Amino acid sequence: SIKIIGQYTNKDAQAYFAYDSKKSFGVTVSHLRFGDKAIKSTYLITAPDFVSCSTHSYIGRYDLLKGIKEGGVFLLNSPWSKEEAFSHLTRDMQETIINKKIKFYNIDAESLIEKQPGLRGKGANTVMMVAYFKVSGIIPFEQALEGMREMTKKTFKKKGDDVVNMNLALIDAAVDACEEVIVPASLDGVCSADPVKFISDDASEFAKKIIEPSMRQKGDDIPVSAMSVDGVIPTGTSCLEKRAIAPRVPHWNSEACIQCGICASACPHAAIRTKLIEKENLKDAPESFNTIEAKPNANGEHFKVQVYCKDCTGCGVCVDQCPANKNPEKQALTWSTIEKEEAACEVVNEKFFDELPDNVMGKNTTKTIKGAMLRKPLFEFSGACAGCGETPYVKLVSQLFGENAIVANATGCSSIYSGTFPTIPYTTTKAGRGPAWANSLFEDNAEFGFGMRLAVEQNRDTLRTFAQKVIENEKTPADLREALTEALTHFDNSKTEEAVAAQDKAKAVLAKYADVDCADLAKVRELQDYFTDKSVWIIGGDGWANDIGYGGIDHVLAQNKNVNILVLDTEVYSNTGGQASKSTPTGAVAKFATGGKKTYKKNMGLMSMSYGYVYVASVALGADRAQTLKAFQEAEAYDGPSIIFAYAPCIAHGIDMSKTQTEQKRAVEAGYFPLYRYNPANEQPFSWDAKDPKGSYQEFIKSEGRYKQLAKTNPDAAEELYQKAEEDAAKRMAVFKAIGELIK
Amino acid sequence: SIKIIGQYTNKDAQAYFAYDSKKSFGVTVSHLRFGDKAIKSTYLITAPDFVSCSTHSYIGRYDLLKGIKEGGVFLLNSPWSKEEAFSHLTRDMQETIINKKIKFYNIDAESLIEKQPGLRGKGANTVMMVAYFKVSGIIPFEQALEGMREMTKKTFKKKGDDVVNMNLALIDAAVDACEEVIVPASLDGVCSADPVKFISDDASEFAKKIIEPSMRQKGDDIPVSAMSVDGVIPTGTSCLEKRAIAPRVPHWNSEACIQCGICASACPHAAIRTKLIEKENLKDAPESFNTIEAKPNANGEHFKVQVYCKDCTGCGVCVDQCPANKNPEKQALTWSTIEKEEAACEVVNEKFFDELPDNVMGKNTTKTIKGAMLRKPLFEFSGACAGCGETPYVKLVSQLFGENAIVANATGCSSIYSGTFPTIPYTTTKAGRGPAWANSLFEDNAEFGFGMRLAVEQNRDTLRTFAQKVIENEKTPADLREALTEALTHFDNSKTEEAVAAQDKAKAVLAKYADVDCADLAKVRELQDYFTDKSVWIIGGDGWANDIGYGGIDHVLAQNKNVNILVLDTEVYSNTGGQASKSTPTGAVAKFATGGKKTYKKNMGLMSMSYGYVYVASVALGADRAQTLKAFQEAEAYDGPSIIFAYAPCIAHGIDMSKTQTEQKRAVEAGYFPLYRYNPANEQPFSWDAKDPKGSYQEFIKSEGRYKQLAKTNPDAAEELYQKAEEDAAKRMAVFKAIGELIK
Ligand SMILES: Cc1ncc(C[n+]2csc(CCOP(=O)(O)OP(=O)(O)O)c2C)c(N)n1
Ligand SMILES: Cc1ncc(C[n+]2csc(CCOP(=O)(O)OP(=O)(O)O)c2C)c(N)n1
Ligand code: SF4
Ligand code: SF4
Ligand code: SF4
Ligand code: SF4
Ligand code: SF4
Ligand code: SF4
Repeated sequence: SIKIIGQYTNKDAQAYFAYDSKKSFGVTVSHLRFGDKAIKSTYLITAPDFVSCSTHSYIGRYDLLKGIKEGGVFLLNSPWSKEEAFSHLTRDMQETIINKKIKFYNIDAESLIEKQPGLRGKGANTVMMVAYFKVSGIIPFEQALEGMREMTKKTFKKKGDDVVNMNLALIDAAVDACEEVIVPASLDGVCSADPVKFISDDASEFAKKIIEPSMRQKGDDIPVSAMSVDGVIPTGTSCLEKRAIAPRVPHWNSEACIQCGICASACPHAAIRTKLIEKENLKDAPESFNTIEAKPNANGEHFKVQVYCKDCTGCGVCVDQCPANKNPEKQALTWSTIEKEEAACEVVNEKFFDELPDNVMGKNTTKTIKGAMLRKPLFEFSGACAGCGETPYVKLVSQLFGENAIVANATGCSSIYSGTFPTIPYTTTKAGRGPAWANSLFEDNAEFGFGMRLAVEQNRDTLRTFAQKVIENEKTPADLREALTEALTHFDNSKTEEAVAAQDKAKAVLAKYADVDCADLAKVRELQDYFTDKSVWIIGGDGWANDIGYGGIDHVLAQNKNVNILVLDTEVYSNTGGQASKSTPTGAVAKFATGGKKTYKKNMGLMSMSYGYVYVASVALGADRAQTLKAFQEAEAYDGPSIIFAYAPCIAHGIDMSKTQTEQKRAVEAGYFPLYRYNPANEQPFSWDAKDPKGSYQEFIKSEGRYKQLAKTNPDAAEELYQKAEEDAAKRMAVFKAIGELIK
Repeated sequence: SIKIIGQYTNKDAQAYFAYDSKKSFGVTVSHLRFGDKAIKSTYLITAPDFVSCSTHSYIGRYDLLKGIKEGGVFLLNSPWSKEEAFSHLTRDMQETIINKKIKFYNIDAESLIEKQPGLRGKGANTVMMVAYFKVSGIIPFEQALEGMREMTKKTFKKKGDDVVNMNLALIDAAVDACEEVIVPASLDGVCSADPVKFISDDASEFAKKIIEPSMRQKGDDIPVSAMSVDGVIPTGTSCLEKRAIAPRVPHWNSEACIQCGICASACPHAAIRTKLIEKENLKDAPESFNTIEAKPNANGEHFKVQVYCKDCTGCGVCVDQCPANKNPEKQALTWSTIEKEEAACEVVNEKFFDELPDNVMGKNTTKTIKGAMLRKPLFEFSGACAGCGETPYVKLVSQLFGENAIVANATGCSSIYSGTFPTIPYTTTKAGRGPAWANSLFEDNAEFGFGMRLAVEQNRDTLRTFAQKVIENEKTPADLREALTEALTHFDNSKTEEAVAAQDKAKAVLAKYADVDCADLAKVRELQDYFTDKSVWIIGGDGWANDIGYGGIDHVLAQNKNVNILVLDTEVYSNTGGQASKSTPTGAVAKFATGGKKTYKKNMGLMSMSYGYVYVASVALGADRAQTLKAFQEAEAYDGPSIIFAYAPCIAHGIDMSKTQTEQKRAVEAGYFPLYRYNPANEQPFSWDAKDPKGSYQEFIKSEGRYKQLAKTNPDAAEELYQKAEEDAAKRMAVFKAIGELIK
């Protein structure tokens, strides 16, 4: 709208946008001003003439009509008719509309968009724009229409005539679709919607004082005095959001399920999960709580797939990946909606599922994906894009090692979706164990994590020394001496079940003597968490790893300390909109490489291997889940530096985001992305884990937008670069396949 | 002295040291204060009671007695007797001594040191210390003597009993060696020394106003207004210094010389040079100017080896390396002294040699070391340590590419010896062409040089565009059009003799039209130097390359631009005293790795090769001069990024510095340092250039102080680490030898 007014009229225009940091379905508030005089307001709008709401789910969540002027206009996108729309507003909105004599219009954008299936659900903004010009009368509607048409042609030209035409058709359809909603004269007998409750009454102070207002877009009202003095904030809070943003959610059909756990491993949002449930725990299950008998079965456990509807983004990755979805007659995962699932008591089921004991393994172990997926994800409901290729890896780390993990996160998508204030996707077990997380700078993250490792070692050394002192002290009571001695027995192998039991015991006995005034004992108490060694994870994107943080990574790898580096390889700087990194392969189009990247994808795996004492793996979850799982476990177990390069499809790739896991498989099969592990602990350290390419390299890259678009903008260069891309990849593969013999 | 007074008396002591930045024979002024009261002076001494001069060559150079107090003491180290010493002072010193009633003592330290040959010339400080205590009477001499003995035992303990005993013997010998010099009552008929003339009368303003006072240690007196406003200072000034510091200098015996040029290639200081001289140019030669007939011979040229006595450091590398020195009866290079050589007119010879035409090649080309050494070094007389392993490589770059070189220098030894204010070792040809040099920061040097490359490309593009415009302009005179057209013909291959001739012609014609008022022409004139492409060299040490600047190097290599990176690999941070870098090999003792380095020497060569389009070479001049030469030439010729790892023995290695070139040979023969070249321009890019190891790895490392000392401090760990060092090196070699097949 602002562009059209700015370009096609004499009016002055100004636009401020206030974003949140969610990458999927984030909230954007556009503050737009128009006028015949120059605009000099350098602040957001507090008293609007016109309020437009593009998603009816915002009703009851945000104070939509705050400050609206007497006689103003409210435009809503909802499926409701002009008769019912008013009754779907909250009481205070209804009062404002009546008291301030607001004109209320509604348009059903989704129904118009559905008629253009090629738009794949996109176009709400276009519809709202048409409605805006229709209703506001800010400029003659014919003039606006012409402007919108021209703009549409310009904007979508690159995407082809089809897309242009569908958008033009959408504009035409929207012209007469806007209805003035019937507003009753009084509220007597008029229904209204309840405000959405974000935070339950038994939630923490932090949730009430910080999260609640932030979620309501009232973060600016929080006083500084309410903030944490040292920047530490609680984890386990993303589950409070229940954003209910998914236009579609999967429904589990238990009878078709083969209990593979793939849906849970693939979901970028931890919104679909699997659990084993011991029989006696099913006693109090709600009637709607369907389960199936677990296979294999140890003690009559049941198996369940649970969808967390209000946390799901509707990305479709689980549905795409479910192996029991091949037969269209009998599918394990089918599409439903939040409303339907809620009606089918899925929210009640979810609550019961959530409260059931976690990590019941039955006959399974974490050596299989199925087994690993029986563990509770300690990374859930992040704000990553729907379908993101990065988050499943972070979730996997949390499931396997989360209870003892400390994470150093480089700036990038992962720092945004992992550390979005005020809710944090990292969470804890019911016993309160879970990852600690921090983000320093883009460039120094490896060093930051290395420092964590040194601190852990220092603290553990100190703990051992002081525990020894207490043990040797004659005055120490026998039970304390015994408990500490036992805990120290497990000091060097401190994450086994036995070890954890001994540590818990020691902590309990320490608590018993909390009042004893002894400096040595106090030190042991202070450091008691360090009886368990920590698993240090240093996480970031390929831009961090290959470019800006590479000097640090190289230095940290060389120091031969036990840290685990996870490189989420989207082959571009995703968080800032897709700039080329040294990991961008030949021929790919990216910002700063709009003519296709001319140089080779940096072979950081080989470079890391050259040290000989660094564990190195290259994985793609969707291509080989077992290999990925193995690599993560080997990396963690290796008593030295480890680095994993994990292939992560991304919105920047120009692909169907419901197929990000399948895309990984295609990439590996085309010989595009290598799978290997280099484990210095093995006699024969290198293993090449991919099968010989069976797909066509060219076909693969030409199916992705980031490569395809070059053929449109520069066809000659494209063919040459595609060829070079294939050769470069082939070279890389050849090096790897032969390298096993070399670097031992 | 200060330590002894501080430790063995109740007096307070204070010491300030003022150093210059020369690494060999630099000047240090020690400002020492003692007293019974606490010392609170926070400034240097301006009115000393006592002046001690450790080198008689300082007489006439520095204002040694400046500010000395009435009745003070002057102590000199010189070979002169008490009768003659006074007459060797300058007139103003003599006057000061008489007028201020200064007591003047002399001691001949060198004659005492010579009696302890195991000290290899070291010990002047010890002798001067004894003399100081004897003469000053600051504390009872017996007490001082005891202190000196104890200190000596402590200081040299690590080096073995032998060294301790020799130093104790030196102390004993010094006790009675100090003589009071006879000072005449008046100066009538007394001889005196002339002040040393640093700068000739026809020298530049810069030399007179900046260099002269700096050389006289009066740099602090130069006003800021005299300094260059943009920091640019002239090159070609180190030759003004003529420090005459060498206790011994080589003498060329022409009859034994086989004209190989090795002495010139090996000299770290460019103080021994070879030239071909065309016959007619010998006409005016001084009688003492001996030459031999050149072989091979084109037109009756003569060959000459010239020693620049006053620039030589006496390091001995040339004498060690001369292949015609095997037969003790008939050696091409034998030892002499500056005095003897001066008497034999070598200074006159040098002047004549210097003024002869440079770069006369006869039948030679730069494809051989002999040929390359016929070119004038454009890097000369730096302040590097005597025998330094780094400088011969820098000199080689200057000889081969110096006329068109731009150098970006990382902080480190090379930035110190290359950019020592106010004299600069980089110099020019007689025609005024030579390297431009700059030093930015330690960490960003690769980026700094990369920026130079981009600037050169930008300037050349602009030049080409504007030259084209001038050519196409109807008003352009024919000769200018022709000259510019010809210069542009050579634009893409701009360093050939023909190209340079065309460029010179174009510049001459441009000068002719200097008055024409045309903006396009002005631009061409401004950028005329860019008709010749530049050779960009990015130079630094292994600490820079492997650690602190590595992120930048990696990024620059990846950009695929034509830059040449030279890594001077001393395997430690030399400039700051020998800290471990990632290039330090397993087992070597360095600062921060005093127990021997535990990890592998980083294989940066392999890492660089992994790009596939980076020229990579590993060289050791003393091991294979031809391979080194080839690598430098290939790197420069390669139209893309190049990196050369050059092995450089250093004082930090604990070796005989007269054998730094031989040490390189030993290192390669022991399989310690690899020789290879990876040239992406070749069909088969990789070539392994070292022969199979014939020396023993263990023997080699145990012969160097940096390894050997571990066996003393920690024998058990030493054996294990030595073993690991050998294995690590063997692994590296195996990788390289097989890699040729892999990375193509
Ligand atoms: C030193 C520095 N430069 C640039 C940025 C801006 N920045 C923030 S995130 C980001 C991109 C991160 O890309 P990548 O490391 O590939 O991670 P991804 O977002 O793809 O997961 C950039 C450039 C920054 N924060 N710090
Ligand atoms: C960022 C930074 N860190 C440290 C220093 C101090 N410093 C100056 S030179 C030097 C050592 C250089 O070592 P190397 O690169 O190996 O070169 P060499 O002296 O061995 O030739 C150091 C540490 C600095 N100048 N800048
Ligand atoms: S994969 Fe996508 S659609 Fe499936 S549960 Fe997770 S978020 Fe929802
Ligand atoms: S992916 Fe499909 S078959 Fe596998 S557990 Fe999930 S729903 Fe069941
Ligand atoms: S990596 Fe890509 S898909 Fe994932 S959150 Fe970032 S931009 Fe979105
Ligand atoms: S002694 Fe050293 S400095 Fe002197 S000429 Fe020989 S190599 Fe050069
Ligand atoms: S090294 Fe010896 S033989 Fe060779 S040129 Fe020099 S002096 Fe002559
Ligand atoms: S590299 Fe070593 S020998 Fe050379 S100048 Fe530096 S410290 Fe001296």
